[in-house]
Formats: sequence, structure tokens, C-alpha cells
Amino acid sequence: MWFNPVDMIARRRANQREDTDDELQVWIQQYVQQKVPDYQMAAWLMAVCFHPLSPRETATLTRCYAESGTILDWPEEVTTNNGLLITRKPRPPMVDKHSSGGVGDKVSLILAPLVAACEDLLPVWVPMMAGRGLGHTGGTIDKLESLVGYNPRQSVENFQKIVQDVGCAIVCATRDICPADQRLYALRDVTSTVSSLPLQTASIMSKKIAEHPDSITLDVKFGHGSFNPSIEEAERLAKAMVAVGEANGLHPTTAFLTDMNFPLGYAVGNWLEVKECIEILKGNVADGRFKLSWDLIILVVIQAGQMLYQSQYHRIGTTNESGGSSSISAPGEPSRLLYSLDRCTQHAYQVLDSGRVLEKFRQMMLAQGADPSYLEQAIEEPDSIALASFVSTWTFEGTSGYIHDVPAKTIGDISVTIGAGRIVANQVVDAQAGLVFFKQVGDAVKAGDIIVSVFTNQSQEQADNALKAVQEAIVIQAEDLPNPRGPIITHKITQQNGTQPFSVPEWLQKHHSHATK
Amino acid sequence: MWFNPVDMIARRRANQREDTDDELQVWIQQYVQQKVPDYQMAAWLMAVCFHPLSPRETATLTRCYAESGTILDWPEEVTTNNGLLITRKPRPPMVDKHSSGGVGDKVSLILAPLVAACEDLLPVWVPMMAGRGLGHTGGTIDKLESLVGYNPRQSVENFQKIVQDVGCAIVCATRDICPADQRLYALRDVTSTVSSLPLQTASIMSKKIAEHPDSITLDVKFGHGSFNPSIEEAERLAKAMVAVGEANGLHPTTAFLTDMNFPLGYAVGNWLEVKECIEILKGNVADGRFKLSWDLIILVVIQAGQMLYQSQYHRIGTTNESGGSSSISAPGEPSRLLYSLDRCTQHAYQVLDSGRVLEKFRQMMLAQGADPSYLEQAIEEPDSIALASFVSTWTFEGTSGYIHDVPAKTIGDISVTIGAGRIVANQVVDAQAGLVFFKQVGDAVKAGDIIVSVFTNQSQEQADNALKAVQEAIVIQAEDLPNPRGPIITHKITQQNGTQPFSVPEWLQKHHSHATK
Repeated sequence: MWFNPVDMIARRRANQREDTDDELQVWIQQYVQQKVPDYQMAAWLMAVCFHPLSPRETATLTRCYAESGTILDWPEEVTTNNGLLITRKPRPPMVDKHSSGGVGDKVSLILAPLVAACEDLLPVWVPMMAGRGLGHTGGTIDKLESLVGYNPRQSVENFQKIVQDVGCAIVCATRDICPADQRLYALRDVTSTVSSLPLQTASIMSKKIAEHPDSITLDVKFGHGSFNPSIEEAERLAKAMVAVGEANGLHPTTAFLTDMNFPLGYAVGNWLEVKECIEILKGNVADGRFKLSWDLIILVVIQAGQMLYQSQYHRIGTTNESGGSSSISAPGEPSRLLYSLDRCTQHAYQVLDSGRVLEKFRQMMLAQGADPSYLEQAIEEPDSIALASFVSTWTFEGTSGYIHDVPAKTIGDISVTIGAGRIVANQVVDAQAGLVFFKQVGDAVKAGDIIVSVFTNQSQEQADNALKAVQEAIVIQAEDLPNPRGPIITHKITQQNGTQPFSVPEWLQKHHSHATK
Repeated sequence: MWFNPVDMIARRRANQREDTDDELQVWIQQYVQQKVPDYQMAAWLMAVCFHPLSPRETATLTRCYAESGTILDWPEEVTTNNGLLITRKPRPPMVDKHSSGGVGDKVSLILAPLVAACEDLLPVWVPMMAGRGLGHTGGTIDKLESLVGYNPRQSVENFQKIVQDVGCAIVCATRDICPADQRLYALRDVTSTVSSLPLQTASIMSKKIAEHPDSITLDVKFGHGSFNPSIEEAERLAKAMVAVGEANGLHPTTAFLTDMNFPLGYAVGNWLEVKECIEILKGNVADGRFKLSWDLIILVVIQAGQMLYQSQYHRIGTTNESGGSSSISAPGEPSRLLYSLDRCTQHAYQVLDSGRVLEKFRQMMLAQGADPSYLEQAIEEPDSIALASFVSTWTFEGTSGYIHDVPAKTIGDISVTIGAGRIVANQVVDAQAGLVFFKQVGDAVKAGDIIVSVFTNQSQEQADNALKAVQEAIVIQAEDLPNPRGPIITHKITQQNGTQPFSVPEWLQKHHSHATK
């Protein structure tokens, strides 16, 4: 195919016509082969910022990124050998989840083992490729690395083995995954072309297509602490990601729009967030202790229910509720859906409440190299794990009032200054640094109440300064607002139904009321 | 000054605010020093295509280009030593001309020696840095190189000496002139960022600022064979160039909007155009022989008049018309303008008609290395200079009619296919190839009339094919159009008066009527 890079750039600049799939493919291939130099790609990227790719072009670009590297190949069947008998079963459907990133967003740490632990209802594999923190947002990999020995850099072979043995794994992408996106992302970073809906979409979704699950759910955040402050922007991104996922065989791709105006849960910082998760993994979540984690629990349970439910669209080997024979359908075809969405969500909640997700988490961490004695200590005596050396705590002294705002981005930025996050790639993060909140938006506060503690290994002065910044950011006023916090999940977006308002089921709300009473 | 390239790009992309002069200066400096890589500059250039630079930013960018290299330093005084007496005189004002490029545009070849030859009225220096042809347009340097020995690559020292000795020189820019623009132009060429008003303006005008004349006239072409097909685009470019020239001390900068729908003069191709010029340089231009060159002659005379006239704004040492003492004013200040514009134009016409410009041309060419005997042959017996080996001539055979169109760009493109021009930089051009027209738009044609000949060294087949393409391009119809060609000059643009309609003076029109009768 004859190909002139300047024509490719000129066409985008003039918004002349859409590129064909072939044109985009050659463009990305030639870039990866270093036949198209960075300066031509940079000009094209900037032109894309002004004349965005169409949905079809975005889907194609995404596929080109994925095809520039390894696309994981999962077995169609699973063979087990207990020494006496070799059994072959269709492999369970695979489902992943992606979050657009937020402050205190520790959902994946609970969600992956939870979905895998629902195997009694529906055996499902959860192969997660997660990221590291950047800017004010934290990253799943950084958090898990606070557990000594945990190794996110697994070979593809190991990754697949752990998923097969445990039902879930959380790794970081290798160099073989979407190398085109890795180079392009680095170029976008230095040419001010990061914020572009189609480019963002392609970058995120290509990794998921390379990971190659059957379906996926997306947690697209809006509000102060997200990368898409307005809900409209978040919706546009979510729709684009759903379209690209579906166009590339992730069926269904389901997105939730979720509120990231305030930190999620009570902890912000790597080990502190793992600690919050371990408490939840132990179960009895309807306990009043979890009031400050309740939005987090809702997000986990709703997504787990959705992931289980939509996995039924794919080849599945399981016993049905009445204990009958397995039900198998061709991939991509909706099988008879044995379980309703609500049934799946309820099951996820029950499994979380039962505390047995902790065992799945333990297995996953051990399989990925976590130090067994350290892991046991973290699980059994989390309070005995050392925190950062310098602590500064805000004990409220003013006139009684209500918390109106805990602005997520500000809190995230402060967490970076005390060592819990990074500003540029490859910076080392401090596992021990972070913030723990004792109150959240909507709560009443009176003199003597502890609101927040700041932990850092830098200096007492740094801890005090960070606390001061937190105090300035948190808004406390006399008035008791009727709805200080909006619902944590506002919409659900699918290819088929578009954007629909979302309500947390009554029974989960009730538990919430119970937990917060 | 702290400087982050990504901020510079982001600001342009977001159209946030104008860059300061300092910011633009650091940006270009860092690029020249290779601290800003090509990919960041490419992203910025593309962002500029969508969010153009303001007039002030464009003027600053232009100055930054000029300041990246040598800015010529001309002496304030001229010393002559005839062996007996050393005389010091203020140096004459310097004036240059730039054309935006066209087909058959050979104006500079006559204009430079003509203005210099008007020294009896006003001594003026014409230091021209000209370009080579690209695409369908020819270049002054290529044309002059058809005269054996002519060397356009002169050192700055030699260039200045020739200008001082002869009054004019035509050289190409050295590597020391605007190196920033040279690198940026190459980058723009491969990133589809050539067509951008501020970037074009800066690229053209920076070389003129580096050349450092006192004032300049611009010939900005519109129509089929120009780079700015619409007159509105041409006007925008002209206004931008006038503003940038004035902002950088070229005072006045005067632009003419001129028609490039049809080739200028009767010859297209390097030696063929020089030959047309030599005939004109010999004078007696009111002769009917020059009917096909009349638009060219008008362009030359009008621009020569303007260049002489506006040179009076600058320090000038000359005798006035009544033979009185010299009149000197500070640079930049209008001196008492001894001669009206019409007087200057008439003088230019008379000098051209007298034939003595040929001597100035001869001196200039010899000073720049032209082979004396070859030059003499070219001047005295131009028909004895060999033409290309293969000729194909169109003798009209159809029903009588009138020529409605000779589309300039098509003719220019055809001239490239037969070897007279180049598609990419550094291609060698054939001095002998080209086209000679015997009729022009508006002329009546009847069976037996010769319309055009095509000359090439490639093959007879190529000559025939090119002629076929020319025949297809030329429009001949029965109807005698009232105004088949618009006026060659439509507007004059200055900082002070903006865009004004322009009419060729009555007396020059008259000569025209005489010549075309």
C-alpha cells in the first residue's frame, strides 16, 4: 500500500474525510517500525485534538494499538488433573473492570477477589491489568505493593496460570502489551495532546482488548477528583469507551458514571487503603463500622453483580440453581441467563458479607509472591503494621456544624506532597504515607471530634503543613444540607440502552441505612 | 527564564492567551539549540494552524527567525577612491522586492537592474536574496543559472561589494540567514503545516529582515497559478506581511495584489524566460513586439516606480532635479520627497525604454561570475543559444475563436513534467526546457495560427504529450469576451492606507494600448 505520512497529516488537518481502517493501520504500524518519525506523529496527534477521530476511527485505532503487541490468548478449555482423573471443562467466562481513576479508589482490590469468590454461583475469571498512580490519583499496583513481596510484573504465562488457579490476578501491563500506545502515550505527554477523547479512549481500551476478557465494566468518574470534572465529559468518555469495547468484541461493555467529588472510603494512601480493604474483606459489612466505607462497598457490590450477570452472555459451565446440569452457549450469544442482575448483585453482597473473599485475596497475593508471614500479619493484626513516622491530627475546635465538602482533587494533591503519590512516571511512592478520615461529607462535627489524620515519613513540619492544607480545603458550615452527597452511582451506559439513570437497589440502600444509622 | 515546552504547546492548543515576546524568543532559541525537539515544535506548529499567531506574535516570530542568524550590516557611508581623491557619501537607500511566486514570473531579472539603473534620478541599492522554483512556480535563481558561470552563492562580503559597485545583486540566502526558518520550513514541509498565514509570513519576511534593506515592495499574487488562489487570501497574506515588515523596521512595506491566473509574459522555463527578459532589457518596449510581455512590463515599471519613490523616505544623497545640492534626512523620517510617485514611475519607464538597463544587468551578471563570452552571446545573439532537443508546436486547426483561458497552474505543472521545474527541493532543473506562447488570453485565433511550442530534452513523445496536455488546458471559444483578462495589478496595500484599488497610470496604459494595437 502506497503511503505518504504528509497526506495522512494533511487529511486530518483539513478534516477532509475519515481515514480508512487500512490507512490507520499502516500509519500506526509505520510509527511502531520507526518509519514515521515522532515529529510527524506529533503533528497528527495535535490535528486529532482539533478534528477528533470518528467512533469507527477510534475503534480502529484502538485495535491497531492492541495489535501492535501481544494479545493474550486464553484457553477454550481447562484441564484439571487430581492424580486419578483428568477433567476437561469449558473455561469460565472472563470479565475485567476499569476505573478512570480517583482519590481513595481501592475498588479493584476487593472487586477482583470478590467476583472470583462467587464461583459457587457462577465461575468467572478476573484477569486484571492495573496501573500505577499519577498526579492526584492513586493506582491499584502501588497500593498492593505495600504488601511486602507482592510482584505485579508477571510473565503472561504466570498471569494466566494464576488466573486459572485462583480465579483472579492483578498485574501491570508488560512491555509486550500495546507497545504502540506506550510510545504514543509518552509522546502525547510531552506534546500537550493527552486530553483528547478518542486518544484517551484508544489508550485505555487497547490494553483491555490486549488483555482479552470476554466482557468488561467501566467505572467512569466525574467530579472534582476525576480527570473529567463535568458529568457530560464523563458521559462522552464512557460512551466512546463502550462503543470501542463493543466494536472490538468486549461484549457487553458496561459503564457506570460515578461520583468522585469526595475521596472514596476513609483512607487515602497505599497501605492505609489496603488496610481499609482488608477490614471489608473480612465481612460483616452491614456493621456500623463501615459507615465511612459505604460508598466504596456499594461500588464494589454493584460492579461485582454486573460482572457476574454479564458473564452469562458467554460460554459458561456451571450448575444451575436447582443443581441441574451445566448450561453452555456459544461465545457472544446470550445464553439462557440463569440469574437476574439483582440475584447476581445479592449474591455478591452475601459473599462479601460472609468474609470468605479474604481467602481469595490471600490466595491471589501469595500466588503473586507476597511474603506469607507479612501477609498474615497484615490480615490478622493490621494495626501492628508500622505507619509513617510523623502524624498530625485535626481535632475539631470550632462551633458545631456539618461537613459540606472534602474536595477530592485537593486531598489527592496533598497526598502526593506527603509522599503517597507521584507527579511523574517512575517516581517511588511511600507505602506508609497518607490520610485517614474519621468524618465524611454530610457528617455533623462538634468540638473535640477527630476529623482527619495525616501520615508522612518526611518531617513533623511536613505533616503539620499538610494537615493545615487539609483544614483549609474541608468546608464546615452551620447548615445541615439535605443532600450533601449525591448518589455514588448516577448512570449506567450500554451500547444497547445508551445512558440510563441508575438507582442502587432498595435492599442495598437498606443495608446502607442500617450501616449508617 | 523558566520555560516548559509543554506549557508553550498547551497554551497554543487552548488558545489561552498570547505568548509574550520573551516566550516566543526562548521557544525559537531553544529549538535552534536543539533543546526543544522536533516533535514538540511539530505539535506547536499544528496548533498554530488552528489557533493562528496574532499580528504582534507574528512580527515577533519573524524577528526571532531573523535573529537566529546573520542580519546584514550595511555601511552608513560609501567611500570612493579614484586614486587622487577619497570621497565619502552617505550610502544610498536600499530597497528590495519579493514575489509570492507564479508561473513565468521573471520580474526580478529586469526589476533589480532597472531600479539600480535609475541612479541618475535617485541612487538606490537593490540587494536581492531570491529563491529557487518549487512545484509549479519557477525561481529567479534557477532562471539566472541558465547563464553559464553565474554564481548565486556569494559570501556576505561579496554580496555587499557587488551591491556597492553595481547597485544590485541577486543571490540566494546562505546557511547563516535565518537558520531557524530553514529548519522550521523543512519541518513544516513534512508535517503539513506549510499553509498557515502567520507561519508563511514569518518565513518570507524574516529573510527580508535579515537582508536588511530600508524598505521593500511585495508582489502578492492571487489566482490559479499562485499559492493563494482567492484574492481575499492574497490580501490577508499581503496585510500580514506589510504589518510584519513595518513592525520590524522595513519602512514602508508596500504590497501589490497582482493577477496570476495566466502565465506572465510569453515564456515559461529558465533560459526561455531569461531570453524574454534580455529582449525587454534592450529597450524600445513600446514596440508592438512586446504585446505578449506587456503585463510583465507593467509589473516591472510600477514596482520600480514604487521602489524609487519610497526610497526617498530614507537618507539619500543626490542632486535634485534643478541640479541643486543633496537632500539628506534621518532614516525612517520622510525626507522632502523630491519626486512624486508618477515621476518615479515615468523615469523607470524611460530608463527601461532607453535600453541602458541591459548594461546594468551585464555588470551584475559579470560581477557574479557569468562567463563573459557566453553572456555576450546570450545578449547579442540569443537565438544562437541552443534550445531543448525536442519541440512540439501547436498550429491551430479548429474554427476561429478567442482564447478564454491559459490556466497558469496547469501550465506550471506541465513545465515541471518536461524538466523545467522541480517537485522536491534540490532537484536539478533543465535550463533549456519550457514553453513559448505566441498567443495569450483574449487573443483571436484562426486556423494556421501557432499558439504554443513545448521544449524538452526528455523525448519527442514527452514533448508531444506535454503539448497535448497544454491543448487540453487552453480554452478557446467562439465568443469574444469583453474583459478576458482582469487588470494585472488590482490593489496596493500599505500600513497607512490599508487596501486601496490600484489603477495603472493613464500614460502607461496608453503605451500599452500602443503596444497591443
